[in-house]
This record gives sequence, C-alpha cells and structure tokens, in this order.
Amino acid sequence: MVRDQGFKVLEPVDRAIEKMMKKLRTLGIENVSIYNCVGRVLARDIIAEFEVPEFDKSAMDGYAVKAEDTFGSSQTNPAILRVIGKIEVGEIPEIEIKKGEAVRVFTGSAIPKGADAVIMLEHTREEGNFVQIFKSLPPFKNVIKKGEDIRKGDLILKRGEILQPQDAGLLASLGFEFVEVYKKPRVSVISTGNELIPPGKKREIGKIYNSNNPMICNALKELDFPVFSLGIAKDRAEEIEKKLLKALEFDAVIFTGGTSVGSHDLVPEIVEKYGEIVFHGVAMKPGLPTAFGIVREKPVFMLPGSPAATFLSFHTFVVPALFRMMNVRILERKWSKKKGILQSRLASEIGIRSNVRVFWKNGKIYPVKISGSGILTSIVSTNAILVIPENFEGYETGEEVEVTLFRDITEVFE
Amino acid sequence: MVRDQGFKVLEPVDRAIEKMMKKLRTLGIENVSIYNCVGRVLARDIIAEFEVPEFDKSAMDGYAVKAEDTFGSSQTNPAILRVIGKIEVGEIPEIEIKKGEAVRVFTGSAIPKGADAVIMLEHTREEGNFVQIFKSLPPFKNVIKKGEDIRKGDLILKRGEILQPQDAGLLASLGFEFVEVYKKPRVSVISTGNELIPPGKKREIGKIYNSNNPMICNALKELDFPVFSLGIAKDRAEEIEKKLLKALEFDAVIFTGGTSVGSHDLVPEIVEKYGEIVFHGVAMKPGLPTAFGIVREKPVFMLPGSPAATFLSFHTFVVPALFRMMNVRILERKWSKKKGILQSRLASEIGIRSNVRVFWKNGKIYPVKISGSGILTSIVSTNAILVIPENFEGYETGEEVEVTLFRDITEVFE
Repeated sequence: MVRDQGFKVLEPVDRAIEKMMKKLRTLGIENVSIYNCVGRVLARDIIAEFEVPEFDKSAMDGYAVKAEDTFGSSQTNPAILRVIGKIEVGEIPEIEIKKGEAVRVFTGSAIPKGADAVIMLEHTREEGNFVQIFKSLPPFKNVIKKGEDIRKGDLILKRGEILQPQDAGLLASLGFEFVEVYKKPRVSVISTGNELIPPGKKREIGKIYNSNNPMICNALKELDFPVFSLGIAKDRAEEIEKKLLKALEFDAVIFTGGTSVGSHDLVPEIVEKYGEIVFHGVAMKPGLPTAFGIVREKPVFMLPGSPAATFLSFHTFVVPALFRMMNVRILERKWSKKKGILQSRLASEIGIRSNVRVFWKNGKIYPVKISGSGILTSIVSTNAILVIPENFEGYETGEEVEVTLFRDITEVFE
Repeated sequence: MVRDQGFKVLEPVDRAIEKMMKKLRTLGIENVSIYNCVGRVLARDIIAEFEVPEFDKSAMDGYAVKAEDTFGSSQTNPAILRVIGKIEVGEIPEIEIKKGEAVRVFTGSAIPKGADAVIMLEHTREEGNFVQIFKSLPPFKNVIKKGEDIRKGDLILKRGEILQPQDAGLLASLGFEFVEVYKKPRVSVISTGNELIPPGKKREIGKIYNSNNPMICNALKELDFPVFSLGIAKDRAEEIEKKLLKALEFDAVIFTGGTSVGSHDLVPEIVEKYGEIVFHGVAMKPGLPTAFGIVREKPVFMLPGSPAATFLSFHTFVVPALFRMMNVRILERKWSKKKGILQSRLASEIGIRSNVRVFWKNGKIYPVKISGSGILTSIVSTNAILVIPENFEGYETGEEVEVTLFRDITEVFE
C-alpha cells in the first residue's frame, strides 16, 4: 500500500468510487415541462398511448386517388379523374372518394376515405373539375400510413435516458405537456481557508482570492445543477460546523480545502462528528487528500484546496455521484466520435450530403431503415449520425466509418 | 447541379454556410459575474496585473528556515534552531528571521523575511523554544515562490476562449469579480402549420402535436441560449408576418415548417418581403428545404418542418451561426477523445493514478511542466487530461496515447 502525505491508507480510485456509490440513493421524481426537459433523466418508460400519425396522410402536394384508377396512366395516356374537393392540412377529412374521383391534398393533409395513394402535383394537370394523371401509382404511394412512425403500445423511451431535444419533440408529438424525471441534486459549495478573500475585495499580502468556489460553481452550472455558494469558512471548527449545517438544507455538499491531514485541516473531523467518513485519501495525483462522507443521509464531498486537485476530484468523484442521485451512470458522452464497422450498405446520391441516422453499439454501426425525414422516431431510436459527403456514393457493409454520438449512452442503477 | 423537390438550385452545404457567415456580425459585449460565466466567450485578452502568488509561501506544514542553517543536518546530527514565532495561513508576516532561527508555518503561510526554505514537520522535533532539524535542505525547498504561477504582464486567457470552470477560477484568483464576454443571442422560435396543436391540448384527427417547437427550444436551452417560444403560426401570410415582426425583438429568429416550395410554404416569401433571402434549398438530406435570410440585420433561420430535417438543419446551420454571433468558431468540442504522439516522457508512481495535464495540438501531445497541483494555470494553459493508470510506470516519448479534451478549441472571426 502506498503511503503519502501522512495518509495511512490510500484508497484506489475505483474502490473509492464503488464505496461512494453504495452510499448514494436516487433522490425522487418530479414533473417538468416538455419545453424545458433537456438533460433531465427520464424516470419511467414511455409507452405510446396512440398511433403516430393517427391518420393516413399525404407526403406530397397533389391529389389523393385510388391507386387502381391510375394503373396504366402515362404522359401520353393520362387517366382523367373528377376532382370532388380539397383537404387542407389540419382539416378533418369529411369527404369520401369513389372510383374515378380525386381530392386535392397538401403535404400533411389527412387522406380521405376511399383513397390509398397520392399523385404528385407535378404529374398532373387540372382542367376545370377534372384532373389528368400522367403516372401509374402503386397502392400507398406518397402516403404516410397511420402508425407508421409509432404504434400504440410501443416502448418509446426507456427509464434512465438523459432527455435530448429530439426526445422532447417525440414526447410532445405524443401529446405530453409534462414528463416525469428524477430530481436533480441541489448542491451547496463551501470553501475553507483563513487565507481566502472573495474576488472583488482589495488584496492583501498573505491572503489569496478564493478561486475554487467560482470554479466549482461554474462546473456545476455547466452540468445544469442548481448551485448555492455558501462562500468562505475560516479554518475554525465552529465556522465550518455552522456552514455544514446550513449546507445540509441542500441535497449535496461540496467543501474545497481543509481536507488533508495538517493541523488546519478540520473538515473531515467535523464531517465525522456529524456523520460518517466513507473514504479519506485516494491513490490519485493530483487529488490525493480527497474525502467523502455522509451526514444526515446527504453526501459531503471534501475536495483538496489545490485548484488542479479540486478540478480533477470534482470530475472523478462528484460528477458520477450527482448523476447517481438521478439514478443514472453515463457510459459514453454525447458528441463523442466513435469508429465502427458498418453492418449494412448505405447508398447516397452524388451531389447531396447525406446525414444518416445510425445506431452505434460496441464498435458496430447499424443503419436504421427510415421511410422519410419526417419520422421523429428515427432520431430517437438512433444514437449517432454518419455523414456521407457530397462526392461519395455511399459506404459498403464491413467498412470502418466514424460517427458522432448525439445521445449520451447511460445505464440505470435501480 | 442537382434538382430536387422543385428547387431550381441546391446550395452545397459548405457554400451555404459560407454565405450565411458573411451576413452575420458579432452582437456586442457585456459584463457577467465570475460565478456565472461558464460557456461564455471571452471578449478581451486577460493580462495579469499582479503576480500569483504575491508572496513566497510554504507548500508544507513545518518550519521556515534559512536553508544554510540546515546544511549537513541528519537524523543523527540535527541542527538546532530557535523558534521565534508562528505564521498562520492568511496572516501578514511581520517577523524576520536571522541565522539560527526558525518560524512555525503551515501549508499556504507566507514565508517570513530572511527564510528561504521550509522543513516538513515530520523531519523535525520541537523541544521548548527550540526545534531539531533532521534533514539538510537546498534553498527554496518547499517554498512556492512569488510569481511562480503567474507573472505580472502574462497573457492569461485569450479573446475568443469559451470560458471553462477553471478559467473562472483563474480569473477569480486575479481578483476579477466580473468578466467581459460577447453577448449571447436571444432566440425566438416559431412553428408554422395549420395542422399543429400545442402539446397538452385534446387531440383531433387531421391535427398533429407541435413537436418541433419544444425540440428546438430544448436544443437552444442545452447550449444555454436564452429562448422564447412564440408558439404556432397558421399557414397564413398575416399570421406569419405578425409573428416574424414580434420575433425581430430578439437577436435571431427560427421558423420551423413552411419553408419548402409548396403552395402552403409561405415563410421564405414573407422573409423576402421584409428583408433578403441568402439561400433557399441546400444539397443535404434530410434538410433540403432549409432557407436562411436577413431581416432588419437579424438572421432568420427557416428550418424544414420534418422533425429529422429540423434537427439536422439546426445543428448544421443554426449552431455555428449563433456561435458566430459571439465571434467564435468551435473547432473541437470539449470532452472529445483525441489520439496523439507524446512529445516527452512521462513517469508515474506505481499504485497511484496520475492525471497529467497536457496540451493537445494536431496529433501531438505536450506534457506541461508543473511544480505543484496548486498551480491553477496548469489547468488553464493545458487543454486535455492524460490518465496514467495505477499499474503503469508512465509513457515514453513517441508513444501514441489517448487524451480527453477538457476545453473547446476555438478561433475568433474578427
């Protein structure tokens, strides 16, 4: 066992994290607005309660028709159908079409009863109450079918997902105005040291500006945790105790400084007086004097006072712990680039940049079959983008390509 | 040139971005608190106005001495010095020591005049007013020298840096309470479509829930841009005009939907009526009907209504544009993992996990010489962490290793 700086035992980092995780619990659940849920951890599985879309709809501007009425139509031999009306986007379709009839529709219009295909406007010519059809259509051509994006009963999002903007979109499309997420820990930050003065104050020989407190407050803000600075405590037991008790009104407490084994390092002692020290001293540099304790069931992180050590201990211990309190472990970070082997061929049109939504898992890349760019589930069921540049015709099965994750990959604790 | 969906010309993505960038200007400068500056773009170079630390200070608990008084000392032949006082951390040192004298100090204490080294408490024994010194010290041993971290006049942070938590710490250590950053664009979001109803409303056949608006609001919130949803506009010119004019109270406008070339796609026309269309139709799938315009000097992003296209157009066009308005281009994202060739040898102690702060640039990795974990500049002048695991003795020059960026890499526009 390594001995250093007066610590009897230095806990290896992984074992320290394991001990810490065992002491932490998920905070609880709350409802947040669908307009403001990004980064929150989903607290329950989301099952679709209706189909999306809920009605057959047109993927094009044109005419809704019976496909069989167009069979054999061509530029020189057009079918001629009677136009019996028009369905605006957003309008409830009251019309029913019969053999020989057509209805004017727009992208997103509900398809009227009796119709099973849409002919693009470009392939028609309207003349009075009639329309000429210059193309033969197979059934369901240019029709987005009811339930094509989501079927009733589908598992849409799993508990433990860190909600992404596209998830908010999907939840909205299912009518959700609010969503259940795990509560986010509210964190208090205390810096200790007789030498500290707050930034903005006049400087004095012997004193230094408190830099750890703004650093940690910003680090928490960056991760969108509510943060409350309790300022500076002098290296005096009463002052540290008073700040600790105040800090316990929040969900987690971070101390910076006063965590080593010197005569002025009072924080671990005081934490032990009110609760329990889980570890003190880790086999990590910088960051060796890091300690962790529990007081009144709340985690107390004791970070070393040296700024680089504070920074590294924060990322090594505090970040995973705060996510643990939201019941989630982050395995891969969003925006990471990942290499992988393409599991099926991807074609792309020369001159167009294709953004292919794929699913990356353990070095394998699975393109997802998608029938249209309107399909919201395509950006929710996938986790990465593969860009095929303008001058590429695509990639072959088995090629190694690089993708960008657009979703954190996570697992839940309980 | 590719023709598609009725667009006469499709702009290649890179050319569209270039045209867009030429139309954008930096918004302006404002002051923000050092406690709440993470993610903001620094608007001026920061030059140190004093040295950090401003005084020689002790890196250890022990005794400040004249090094020459310890020469030849050992366990069996200790020097004996007279203890003339004590300097607490944060105390102004009034004492001066002479030959044969010592002063009790703590980690962070100012070193008294006349002293030039600190002997660790473990290597001493106090007896009455005297202390035995069991070790010979070279001058400056265990002393953090004035200006060791920062020298007066040093360029500390460059204009265009995206402020990280450690930068906030550094600015605080220089006494800054506020910092000048580029203003962040405030963004308004409008979704168009007769078929749209807001989430939470009762559903109807023919209608769909507005999913793009919550998606884009969350995507902006994720990047910490102030966002104002102006809700839904029907596909009617007056309604779109009214919302557009309202939206121009903000710094940027995002429309979703109504951007194609169908009869209900009115947005680009209305933008052209009040301003200028810069491009309409890009060679990208999904996202082909994306348009961009300028109205009253404000950017108007017209994103296609299909959710996947909205999502991809947002990341391809809106994100770089909003950063452009803060005068910065992001070249590499924070938390990316990067491989590189180590430019000098790195040793590590077996049993300890070392977090080495390095500077990554174009596939080369430069370790930075650091004299202590307290040196805040070590996490500001570097941009990546190389973890040396517990069971490694280090890495050799020329080895390929992987590091994690902890800073966005950026360049400024003007």
